[in-house]
Amino acid sequence: MNAVFIACSLDGYIADKNGSVGWLDSIEYPKDYDMGYGDFMSRMDALVMGRKSFETVCGFDVEWPYDKPVFVLSNTMVSVPEEFADEAYPVKGAIQDILDRLHKKGFKNLYIDGGKTIQSFLKEDLIDEMTITTIPILLGGGMPLFGQLDKLQMFECVNHKTYEDRIPQMKYVRKRG
Amino acid sequence: MNAVFIACSLDGYIADKNGSVGWLDSIEYPKDYDMGYGDFMSRMDALVMGRKSFETVCGFDVEWPYDKPVFVLSNTMVSVPEEFADEAYPVKGAIQDILDRLHKKGFKNLYIDGGKTIQSFLKEDLIDEMTITTIPILLGGGMPLFGQLDKLQMFECVNHKTYEDRIPQMKYVRKRG
Repeated sequence: MNAVFIACSLDGYIADKNGSVGWLDSIEYPKDYDMGYGDFMSRMDALVMGRKSFETVCGFDVEWPYDKPVFVLSNTMVSVPEEFADEAYPVKGAIQDILDRLHKKGFKNLYIDGGKTIQSFLKEDLIDEMTITTIPILLGGGMPLFGQLDKLQMFECVNHKTYEDRIPQMKYVRKRG
Repeated sequence: MNAVFIACSLDGYIADKNGSVGWLDSIEYPKDYDMGYGDFMSRMDALVMGRKSFETVCGFDVEWPYDKPVFVLSNTMVSVPEEFADEAYPVKGAIQDILDRLHKKGFKNLYIDGGKTIQSFLKEDLIDEMTITTIPILLGGGMPLFGQLDKLQMFECVNHKTYEDRIPQMKYVRKRG
């Protein structure tokens, strides 16, 4: 099962025109809860993200944020920097082959993160659920969460919350067949 | 006050790649209520839409759907087809000038409709509230609800409903200054 858990702007961007996510701090978040992130992560076996997202996380001035293995999609990266060697592992090849290998190792519930990676998975209709928190801001441009698709994909809204009565979060699951 | 009331796909499109809105019928809607449309319309004094949207509505094989005057933005249209002469009125010029004229005539609360028109109003930061119903489908391309903007715009989510527990609808109001 491949899942997305992400915040995006009202106009569907996950990073602004400068590639920054600083605008996420333009609203105040609830102090006492994590907006479902902990529950979501506890259901996941591992993360899958692109090289660029991985390098962004490596650059954060905080402790390594994940307690699950992170698989970094890259066809050129041979190893991750030594300090992250216990946390992250490069993987290469076609997405379905990578998934087959991860499933065999017991990593079945995967948190798919990063704009390009999410779009690649969606292109192959490999996303099963998406939890999307909408930040009520129009950025007017940037990195879109969704890209072009050859075929439409039906989802179902299975959960809906509004944190502090002003931050909507929806959970959608893919409706196939 | 300029308001938007619209349905869009999960990936932010209001028409598919063929310009069609047929995909709106890919989900089942609540039978007993109008998803807030009646309440919304009762607050409005008139509609403002582009020529293309107007022509689309004219082509619908149903009775004229609006009981409020419709102002059709067009710099080339001199009059509307005779059968709609009591319903719709062409207006031309810069958006702010048109608004000034409509306000003077007592049309203060305006329902702004049609993709291009909504985007033109947003470009000039003239939208005060947006009620957006999200249809849980990824279209993968088409006519986007939102376009590029020079400056970001903060909104506030002031109302949130989920019709039949599966069709989310959010109302956002512009937060200025």
